[in-house]
Amino acid sequence: MTSRRPDGADALPGEDALIARYFRPLATSPGAFALEDDAACIEPRPHHALVITSDAIVEGVHFLADDPPRSVARKALRVNLSDLAAKGAAPIGFTLTLALPAANGEWLAAFADALGDDAHRYGCPLLGGDTVKTPGPLVISITAFGEVPSGTMVRRGAGRAGDIVMVTGTIGDAALGLKLLQGAHWTLTEDQRAHLVGRYREPQPRNALAEIVRTHARAAMDMSDGLIGDLARMCRVSHVGATIGAESVPLSGAAQAVVAQDAQARELILAGGDDYELLCALAPEAVADFEREVQAAGVPVARIGKFEEGEGVRVLDASGADIAVAAAPYSHF
Amino acid sequence: MTSRRPDGADALPGEDALIARYFRPLATSPGAFALEDDAACIEPRPHHALVITSDAIVEGVHFLADDPPRSVARKALRVNLSDLAAKGAAPIGFTLTLALPAANGEWLAAFADALGDDAHRYGCPLLGGDTVKTPGPLVISITAFGEVPSGTMVRRGAGRAGDIVMVTGTIGDAALGLKLLQGAHWTLTEDQRAHLVGRYREPQPRNALAEIVRTHARAAMDMSDGLIGDLARMCRVSHVGATIGAESVPLSGAAQAVVAQDAQARELILAGGDDYELLCALAPEAVADFEREVQAAGVPVARIGKFEEGEGVRVLDASGADIAVAAAPYSHF
Repeated sequence: MTSRRPDGADALPGEDALIARYFRPLATSPGAFALEDDAACIEPRPHHALVITSDAIVEGVHFLADDPPRSVARKALRVNLSDLAAKGAAPIGFTLTLALPAANGEWLAAFADALGDDAHRYGCPLLGGDTVKTPGPLVISITAFGEVPSGTMVRRGAGRAGDIVMVTGTIGDAALGLKLLQGAHWTLTEDQRAHLVGRYREPQPRNALAEIVRTHARAAMDMSDGLIGDLARMCRVSHVGATIGAESVPLSGAAQAVVAQDAQARELILAGGDDYELLCALAPEAVADFEREVQAAGVPVARIGKFEEGEGVRVLDASGADIAVAAAPYSHF
Repeated sequence: MTSRRPDGADALPGEDALIARYFRPLATSPGAFALEDDAACIEPRPHHALVITSDAIVEGVHFLADDPPRSVARKALRVNLSDLAAKGAAPIGFTLTLALPAANGEWLAAFADALGDDAHRYGCPLLGGDTVKTPGPLVISITAFGEVPSGTMVRRGAGRAGDIVMVTGTIGDAALGLKLLQGAHWTLTEDQRAHLVGRYREPQPRNALAEIVRTHARAAMDMSDGLIGDLARMCRVSHVGATIGAESVPLSGAAQAVVAQDAQARELILAGGDDYELLCALAPEAVADFEREVQAAGVPVARIGKFEEGEGVRVLDASGADIAVAAAPYSHF
């Protein structure tokens, strides 16, 4: 076996070479053993617990076949980072399982490069994984690990009647961005289009807020399947209901421009999904500190309603009348 | 929303209902939060490290479309358990990501039931995961977690020249079993056929040996891609070579029956893959204790060769002459 490359990758058989060439540079943690062992090994700090989340994205379902590989990489990792943020956890690392229809070097190089940038940016190095061949579409499964002081993981089911419903950022941009990619004809500036499409292709997970959420929020989750559906999920496991004001839901300028010309876009915004913003239950006395600290971190935050005794989610318009919005979160089945 | 089932599953939208009905019963760990949160939370015992491994299996690549769902479940989890065994780790739990072409209730019920049996049997409960729709073949990605006392994970790259090459169980059965399923015409008894096919469909991971491996082995890995290829991998990261005797490689009665009628089967046995037995490097002075304890656990174990200065793997026949065997592990790319 003679190697023509300094890293020896040319001397290795297929899968090993692919992993060595594209993914070893991302395995910067000593516990990843340069991806040359069967397993990774990590040790949370004393008195800390490990937070674990798994999310997969599938070509043609969660991203489009012609989405840029750099965007696909960012989406694959960030949908997991978003879960860690919602739980108040600091990222430790992730494992990556790629089911690849073919080994396209150019695609993989761009994918791995962007994934490495995000791993560095969010302090979440690659720990290990698996690369397998599939006759079907590309499937990217990531399991991400974070750390919280023992017993402090922010739960989804801890909301109480009387708590305030709060969301970070703006809602609905990604769902509108997907509609644009699918051919929706709204009159928008180039910047507005780019904003909405960018929000679909590249979630901006709120990891900068993890400690603030852990300090102040009673319950939290990230929104991936639509505000209304995810709020219904939080209500169900918290054994409460919620009422929100449709007019209180924060919209970007681009989303406001869409709503102004297409009244039906409102439902898409409320139920559409891919927001990757945080949905939090705040005790009334914690709201002011939470708002101040989130805003100090440069992130918009809004009060959109209230948890209450009962079950289910009510959405009211500006006059206080009920709006019917499909309450089911987006489901593939 | 009215529920017709005591678990409320009928009242939930698609994915949530699917998870609640089929997978919640497997989430017996308190840190899994009944699969109702964004993430799981686990805490290794003090002075213990977490061992993490990810392996995926794809329909039509790692299992056959008409393999029984119970076998598919066992294979999906056990290929990961096998990695934990090789690292000397005790299982803690796993996350499951299913990319499903359709939600077939009968298939899912059998799959989840067998997965639950194995989770119980190996002490490895379901912690979380993701269920997504795919237009392509079924992809099952599992990330499994184990625990070792800090600093004791058995490495793949710690073999030294002079160490003895040892393997557990018998080699080649699964590769022969796959050939049978693909139509190979060997004259075998029904029991022999069932043995070989069973070894392909349902790996028997050596988790009962984890502590013995951790106590005695200098290096270890599990064999998934063929004895020769995986031994070459261990040699490469250990910076040594190895010579093994083909006649020393332990064969089952069924495999012996195949070799007796098909000389070419020998190469399939040595390079074919899916063994999920352990490959270990033992210091000469550790061999006797290792053999005694492994046998006491009811598992066959064999010395098949020696690590030495240099690189690459040599295979010798009974007369001491070199046999050419494709050294590359099975690769999908």
